[in-house]
Amino acid sequence: MSATDVHAAGEKQAPAETAGQPGYRIVNRILDWITNDKTQLLNITERMNEVVSKSGVRNGLVHLQSLHTTTALFLNEWQDALLVDVKKFLEEAVEADRYYRHNDPEHSDCERRNAHSHLKGMLMGQTLCLQVRNAKVLLGTWQSIVLAEFDGPRSRSLAVQVSGI
Amino acid sequence: MSATDVHAAGEKQAPAETAGQPGYRIVNRILDWITNDKTQLLNITERMNEVVSKSGVRNGLVHLQSLHTTTALFLNEWQDALLVDVKKFLEEAVEADRYYRHNDPEHSDCERRNAHSHLKGMLMGQTLCLQVRNAKVLLGTWQSIVLAEFDGPRSRSLAVQVSGI
Amino acid sequence: MSATDVHAAGEKQAPAETAGQPGYRIVNRILDWITNDKTQLLNITERMNEVVSKSGVRNGLVHLQSLHTTTALFLNEWQDALLVDVKKFLEEAVEADRYYRHNDPEHSDCERRNAHSHLKGMLMGQTLCLQVRNAKVLLGTWQSIVLAEFDGPRSRSLAVQVSGI
Repeated sequence: MSATDVHAAGEKQAPAETAGQPGYRIVNRILDWITNDKTQLLNITERMNEVVSKSGVRNGLVHLQSLHTTTALFLNEWQDALLVDVKKFLEEAVEADRYYRHNDPEHSDCERRNAHSHLKGMLMGQTLCLQVRNAKVLLGTWQSIVLAEFDGPRSRSLAVQVSGI
Repeated sequence: MSATDVHAAGEKQAPAETAGQPGYRIVNRILDWITNDKTQLLNITERMNEVVSKSGVRNGLVHLQSLHTTTALFLNEWQDALLVDVKKFLEEAVEADRYYRHNDPEHSDCERRNAHSHLKGMLMGQTLCLQVRNAKVLLGTWQSIVLAEFDGPRSRSLAVQVSGI
Repeated sequence: MSATDVHAAGEKQAPAETAGQPGYRIVNRILDWITNDKTQLLNITERMNEVVSKSGVRNGLVHLQSLHTTTALFLNEWQDALLVDVKKFLEEAVEADRYYRHNDPEHSDCERRNAHSHLKGMLMGQTLCLQVRNAKVLLGTWQSIVLAEFDGPRSRSLAVQVSGI
């Protein structure tokens, strides 16, 4: 499986809203992914540029929020070798095979035993806010937007809001 | 002590400002908490929804900023067992009982010896920006907004800004 | 070298844009720094207040985005002793002298062998969004804005966007 191997990606158009006044506008989208590994990194840069391009906002902010505690959003270079290092770093920073109260049936009714997935999501954060300039997401040469799955395979939703002028 | 055991929570109404033009508006609030433990996690989700609801903004962003370096803001599931894991993880990621220059009277005039509290606050971050949709804070089913105290007991202030249409 | 020892800092005025309508406006800037150490922490608080002050925005958000994956932005107290602790903490959290695939010529064409710099930048984040109130960046008494260099010396660009009313 490659990191970009995604089964399906849907886009719900319904919740989009646009301000009536000239100038300032807000456009909302929910994007869906189905992940297929326990830990998976997805490059969503191109999808974010599509959303921004369609929004009509030329100048402002794009706010990304994963709606799941066992996922994260961050920037990094999209290079196969580095992605291996990223996964290994996070696996060592938050060990899976140790005692967690969240995984202990005496203290928790969570059957996924995914405490380490929660801690990875918390550490890396589930939101990301970036600038929109000239109708594109502002990114440095080596910056890609990464959506990280820490408890797949699952269906995952990402809320995207583009606002500005 | 339960994680939600907070002595008092005040709300300063004074700094609120609203744009005169129809549509776009900004509403500012400062909320106060008194924490009662060295390390404490507070679930502030409901309070944030109250602020957003009163703001009149239906669609936009809510930006949270703790005004203290030894605190943090993040999202996670609010489950007692997991909160124990979160505290333990952070205690191990940033050890309290080791040499820090910030705690050394030869190099620092800080009498709180709280270098590890600073490092926890830096690692987890003191700001959080979330989307507002339909006059509510957008959150996934299991996402709660957590304000973390790493150097209590103290009086703590949280700046909240709601902006949009 | 002191942490504020920066060779040069330029400001590109070109990409600034302002909304024509009264009230809401967006002002964009790109600021440049030349760093002179492998790891360096820069206090950019004063520069950010200058940008906000010149923007004409009294109330809103200031969004900072470093355009480089091996840098980071965060808040912390600006105290010499603590800055030593910050650097040491990050050096231990992300070890430089171990195997990384990104540094292995068999798997990567990156000659900088800077996998640990990428991981530090990813862990700490390359964006920071803060509130603007009364034409100033809202910060607690002990909060300073820190731009961290993890792979210097280099020329670095910071995109700053001020938006609001």
